[in-house]
Amino acid sequence: MTDAASLADRVREGDLRLHELEAHADADTAAEARRLLVESQSGASLDAVGNYGFPAEAAESAIENMVGSIQVPMGVAGPVSVDGGSVAGEKYLPLATTEGALLASVNRGCSVINSAGGATARVLKSGMTRAPVFRVADVAEAEALVSWTRDNFAALKEAAEETTNHGELLDVTPYVVGNSVYLRFRYDTKDAMGMNMATIATEAVCGVVEAETAASLVALSGNLCSDKKPAAINAVEGRGRSVTADVRIPREVVEERLHTTPEAVAELNTRKNLVGSAKAASLGFNAHVANVVAAMFLATGQDEAQVVEGANAITTAEVQDGDLYVSVSIASLEVGTVGGGTKLPTQSEGLDILGVSGGGDPAGSNADALAECIAVGSLAGELSLLSALASRHLSSAHAELGR
Amino acid sequence: MTDAASLADRVREGDLRLHELEAHADADTAAEARRLLVESQSGASLDAVGNYGFPAEAAESAIENMVGSIQVPMGVAGPVSVDGGSVAGEKYLPLATTEGALLASVNRGCSVINSAGGATARVLKSGMTRAPVFRVADVAEAEALVSWTRDNFAALKEAAEETTNHGELLDVTPYVVGNSVYLRFRYDTKDAMGMNMATIATEAVCGVVEAETAASLVALSGNLCSDKKPAAINAVEGRGRSVTADVRIPREVVEERLHTTPEAVAELNTRKNLVGSAKAASLGFNAHVANVVAAMFLATGQDEAQVVEGANAITTAEVQDGDLYVSVSIASLEVGTVGGGTKLPTQSEGLDILGVSGGGDPAGSNADALAECIAVGSLAGELSLLSALASRHLSSAHAELGR
Amino acid sequence: MTDAASLADRVREGDLRLHELEAHADADTAAEARRLLVESQSGASLDAVGNYGFPAEAAESAIENMVGSIQVPMGVAGPVSVDGGSVAGEKYLPLATTEGALLASVNRGCSVINSAGGATARVLKSGMTRAPVFRVADVAEAEALVSWTRDNFAALKEAAEETTNHGELLDVTPYVVGNSVYLRFRYDTKDAMGMNMATIATEAVCGVVEAETAASLVALSGNLCSDKKPAAINAVEGRGRSVTADVRIPREVVEERLHTTPEAVAELNTRKNLVGSAKAASLGFNAHVANVVAAMFLATGQDEAQVVEGANAITTAEVQDGDLYVSVSIASLEVGTVGGGTKLPTQSEGLDILGVSGGGDPAGSNADALAECIAVGSLAGELSLLSALASRHLSSAHAELGR
Amino acid sequence: MTDAASLADRVREGDLRLHELEAHADADTAAEARRLLVESQSGASLDAVGNYGFPAEAAESAIENMVGSIQVPMGVAGPVSVDGGSVAGEKYLPLATTEGALLASVNRGCSVINSAGGATARVLKSGMTRAPVFRVADVAEAEALVSWTRDNFAALKEAAEETTNHGELLDVTPYVVGNSVYLRFRYDTKDAMGMNMATIATEAVCGVVEAETAASLVALSGNLCSDKKPAAINAVEGRGRSVTADVRIPREVVEERLHTTPEAVAELNTRKNLVGSAKAASLGFNAHVANVVAAMFLATGQDEAQVVEGANAITTAEVQDGDLYVSVSIASLEVGTVGGGTKLPTQSEGLDILGVSGGGDPAGSNADALAECIAVGSLAGELSLLSALASRHLSSAHAELGR
Repeated sequence: MTDAASLADRVREGDLRLHELEAHADADTAAEARRLLVESQSGASLDAVGNYGFPAEAAESAIENMVGSIQVPMGVAGPVSVDGGSVAGEKYLPLATTEGALLASVNRGCSVINSAGGATARVLKSGMTRAPVFRVADVAEAEALVSWTRDNFAALKEAAEETTNHGELLDVTPYVVGNSVYLRFRYDTKDAMGMNMATIATEAVCGVVEAETAASLVALSGNLCSDKKPAAINAVEGRGRSVTADVRIPREVVEERLHTTPEAVAELNTRKNLVGSAKAASLGFNAHVANVVAAMFLATGQDEAQVVEGANAITTAEVQDGDLYVSVSIASLEVGTVGGGTKLPTQSEGLDILGVSGGGDPAGSNADALAECIAVGSLAGELSLLSALASRHLSSAHAELGR
Repeated sequence: MTDAASLADRVREGDLRLHELEAHADADTAAEARRLLVESQSGASLDAVGNYGFPAEAAESAIENMVGSIQVPMGVAGPVSVDGGSVAGEKYLPLATTEGALLASVNRGCSVINSAGGATARVLKSGMTRAPVFRVADVAEAEALVSWTRDNFAALKEAAEETTNHGELLDVTPYVVGNSVYLRFRYDTKDAMGMNMATIATEAVCGVVEAETAASLVALSGNLCSDKKPAAINAVEGRGRSVTADVRIPREVVEERLHTTPEAVAELNTRKNLVGSAKAASLGFNAHVANVVAAMFLATGQDEAQVVEGANAITTAEVQDGDLYVSVSIASLEVGTVGGGTKLPTQSEGLDILGVSGGGDPAGSNADALAECIAVGSLAGELSLLSALASRHLSSAHAELGR
Repeated sequence: MTDAASLADRVREGDLRLHELEAHADADTAAEARRLLVESQSGASLDAVGNYGFPAEAAESAIENMVGSIQVPMGVAGPVSVDGGSVAGEKYLPLATTEGALLASVNRGCSVINSAGGATARVLKSGMTRAPVFRVADVAEAEALVSWTRDNFAALKEAAEETTNHGELLDVTPYVVGNSVYLRFRYDTKDAMGMNMATIATEAVCGVVEAETAASLVALSGNLCSDKKPAAINAVEGRGRSVTADVRIPREVVEERLHTTPEAVAELNTRKNLVGSAKAASLGFNAHVANVVAAMFLATGQDEAQVVEGANAITTAEVQDGDLYVSVSIASLEVGTVGGGTKLPTQSEGLDILGVSGGGDPAGSNADALAECIAVGSLAGELSLLSALASRHLSSAHAELGR
Repeated sequence: MTDAASLADRVREGDLRLHELEAHADADTAAEARRLLVESQSGASLDAVGNYGFPAEAAESAIENMVGSIQVPMGVAGPVSVDGGSVAGEKYLPLATTEGALLASVNRGCSVINSAGGATARVLKSGMTRAPVFRVADVAEAEALVSWTRDNFAALKEAAEETTNHGELLDVTPYVVGNSVYLRFRYDTKDAMGMNMATIATEAVCGVVEAETAASLVALSGNLCSDKKPAAINAVEGRGRSVTADVRIPREVVEERLHTTPEAVAELNTRKNLVGSAKAASLGFNAHVANVVAAMFLATGQDEAQVVEGANAITTAEVQDGDLYVSVSIASLEVGTVGGGTKLPTQSEGLDILGVSGGGDPAGSNADALAECIAVGSLAGELSLLSALASRHLSSAHAELGR
């Protein structure tokens, strides 16, 4: 009997619990034991899942109860010429997806952007937020807490920054609803996406608030942050990076390469992305930005659940002297080039393709560059899909490229 | 010189384009050639990405310009006892993520749910939508189109269903904004997520509309669908599956296993998930449902960009005779067990763990079962995180389990 | 001592309560007594308030604790030429407001509309809603209630319609969140705004639901209605009348009368009403539709708090062959020509100006006509303000016309 | 022939235009002439409308094309005991409405609040906003404009404040969408609602921006303000006054006076105002705050179209040691005690009832007091309606008190 089989038996017998296996064997053996358990319980074969290409130990900070890995096909689009605030030059864009036709679409967009001389991109606002909720006695005490917070920002900043080598507390915005007070703390977390850093720093801040005021902490996150929820506060005020990319495509390029006209794309963008989204009461005024965000997030080790906030994007299209101007503005793109999934082998390689792996110089510039590349990729995707719709071959493109 | 190196050279020389390689070599060689190109252009090494565990041909319907794959660690939580409309019994839940502490959190929630006798789950509404936008002359013609659509539903249904073996057109809802008319078609797409099926069927329908009326199609999707955008129309009316799960936890289990009280969890849920999300103007009234949706989507081959709609979830918590009642209602969970990424080896194994791979009997029941399992996983995640927050060890849990 | 003074004394002495005065005197004397009380308590003089022009008895169904009336200046814009589904010809539009420059602006818009041959308007959807919330045991019972509701619609309709001479129950849409089930009942309330009719009918329906199922009524309104709140469900699905108006203005009229160009208005509308509102996460994509809705509501005896829903409007502007096309679509305009404030003398005269006082023939046509007139007034207001902004004289117009 | 008849004839003959009459007669005669015209065109009698109780000249800054006035019944609720930041003591609340049962409901709420020792209220944030939209060349120029704005705030503030004796420019927040830049200027407008003051000051600021940068003004309002639209930016960040009121009602008062229990009210508030509004994708999490806002706005000369923003309110209810705690937080209540409709006779008397007519000492305190009184009135209304629903007599109350 293998070690893994023996461990599996001990779990079956109630001698061990599923998450305790790493204490009794190396990580690969623990994962194998879990596969055995799951296979026998479910009847599934987990051969493919078990064929992962990294040492299980390498994933220990990323997952518990590991059984293996899933594999998602990765491709590249481009290279595309980017003029960003923190990145410049030709870049291949890595995308991991199972959505047939997506890579082809982005690739076509990149090619057209290059024909127009490249895209411009800028991070226009930056900051990771965490917003604990406190209970106070009543409205009068809420007012007092709001005042106290404003008067004691220096002390809160000091407490926050003692917990981190890199992070800085930028500001705090209070929101009051009856006897609940939400304090939205915003941090510069440099090249880290920063949710964990912000949480730890905010916990220290909350200790000060509770020690010095009558307020009681109810939850370290009060949903005004707002993490992994489709919230207007993020769409309006931003979270992570607020990044915009744009390009102006000469009319002849639109006509010859995209088989449509600037006028048709502009009209379609208005009726679909602006008026259609308005009528849908949407926070997303775009065609499929989430597709690119999700695929580039996967390829570069970002937090896949934060695709939610990445969909808070507005696409505009207009005719400028006969040419086509298109822009994509993503309000709340939460990205990092250190920490989290960025350390895994394939994801690290994804960052290397963009040249943004690890900490940047200056600090934060790699994450800014990543945000700008994703914005340009999104721009390419929007340009391509809007043009495809305008020339009416969306579903035939799908049919040809498959799904 | 290898075939791949030779192909790469031909691309460098402008003789071939990046996406044409499959026409000149097998898929694996084409991918290798692209890796060579990207490596030399970016300086990255793509060894890990190139070490994919499936034949490149298998991914052809999922991606273009493939260079390899990314690997995301996969683990299991549970097993958890599920009483669903289309699934019953003990299920291990597969989750793929790089978010440390997530599996541990969901696993703890599953364990507590089991102590309470299991969770209940139901799909309460179902239907995949596609909403083209048409241009009409004016308001009077808009009114005529709306009337015509209602009067000719049978013809539209016939046209739609000629394009599909399985799908059914359920209904159509018109929305008018000035001279733009949006027709939101809703389909039963059985075990397929159905976006592609709905698109193709809708294209046929649009042909009828254009032939029979004065309306002109502007775009096959007018964003009233609404796909991969955070839109209230989905949060209110649903898209894909609307699924709810709940559980009632005895007080002693809450106290002993979760180290908090039903009262504390209920208060925290109100201040954070309800009032906090209200103040954030959010469509998501939950703690971290998107985490579970994203991780189970990855593990089972779903469309990762549709995590956006999966975040349209409301979590409730209340004290019932001293016990804790918790529910999670996801309005627009778009899932399938056939097509798309579900065919890839690791993802197919993920579905096998749940016993829902391929078409169900009756048709649609596998996708329903998957939705119910994701809802229960989300319930476990909510229960665990809310309890952790209530007992104030969120960030210490992260610190211990790492990120 | 007058009767009123004597009554006031009795209230001061605690012998009577403020709302009981009508039981001891005629309505005018009761109002006078209250004025005396309020004057002595606050130091205010209420001479103007006391100078009301209707018998106090006439207001008894509209207010309690009456002290008099406020007076709001009323003016007219137009006449404007309307081609509606239920109204045709030249109409003066009555508006009551204290917003200087509003009448002038709407009047200018009407004049321009006339130069273009008049505006078209249509009610495209209609129905007043009420959505009670029920508590059920769990998700399984929620599913059962949803099924039961669909299977027993005829019985619910019968119960509802027994309470009303005119109203009809059109349909019911169920929404489930955990153990809360919301049933949104939609009624045709003919020429009545219908909130009261819908409430009474729904109370009867709730009795049937409670008698026949395990569900318990929590509240007769569960906010899915949604009345007097800015809710996406109304913006998307409509409530009251969904009404659209449009006009195409020849280029020369735009240039000569509005001192701007179709291109400038279209661009401004896109940047302000579409993109600006998108970035503001708004349900209102217009310039100032609420101004016209509020003023015409006041002038015709509508429920002023329902201006909230009346602001759910989208304005579009586009260049058509060199001319300017403008439309306004109001999703949820709740209006009536019978009941409520429509019976008061000045408000009844306001309706008479439009020729829509009382019940229409066919029933509902007067309320439809009113909705169409308000939509045309809103269109005039949008056209005028957008043009003023485009020619940059907004604040100078205000300065000249005063506030 | 009277002067009015003669004027009316000249309009009919095309010799004069409707809005030019004041240049040829006194204001009352001009209004009479318009009534004659409208009467003969529509067949309506305008006797009641013509019986207005103020000199027509007094309304000249409030309306154009005046024909008379409408009268809305006004009543009082209370007095209610208020502990506010700018108001203290017993206050009668003036409400003008045609919604039967509303005054009775608010009055009952006031009475219960008094039994609990009165309500607390505070203005927690204040500022009137105006947000012009500028066109820039591209994203890089957008970034430059954002930087320039931050670096030149002092100059912008100086330009703004030269236009006003009282107003102060507090801050500016930039928002970028592609090549559109929105600058949201926030002003302290003291006792004025301030929309006009903010508009004029912002026009001056825009002149500086255009003179010093490459940006072109598109519209003085870009809808990020956001005025008279239901926008999340106001619900989240506030506009006008953000004001909160609360009260704790002893259990016995709830039981004896409201015929329900704290537990029932809290549950109902959660299912209706929180979960129900969440499912409706609403910005209003309350029962009927807009009713009180609309009625007190009418009674005190506020801008009735701004009821829209006044509906952005969250009501909470919870059990505290067996008692009932209820709060109402209105995010964006736009009020003033000088300017606009406050100068009219009846409206000025409405302000006098509250003791807040004209400018306060310190400046702004009267408008703060008015906001606090409206918040307390809203609290009374919520308390009463939630209790009525909890004891199930909503529609019977309507039936009895009539509509």
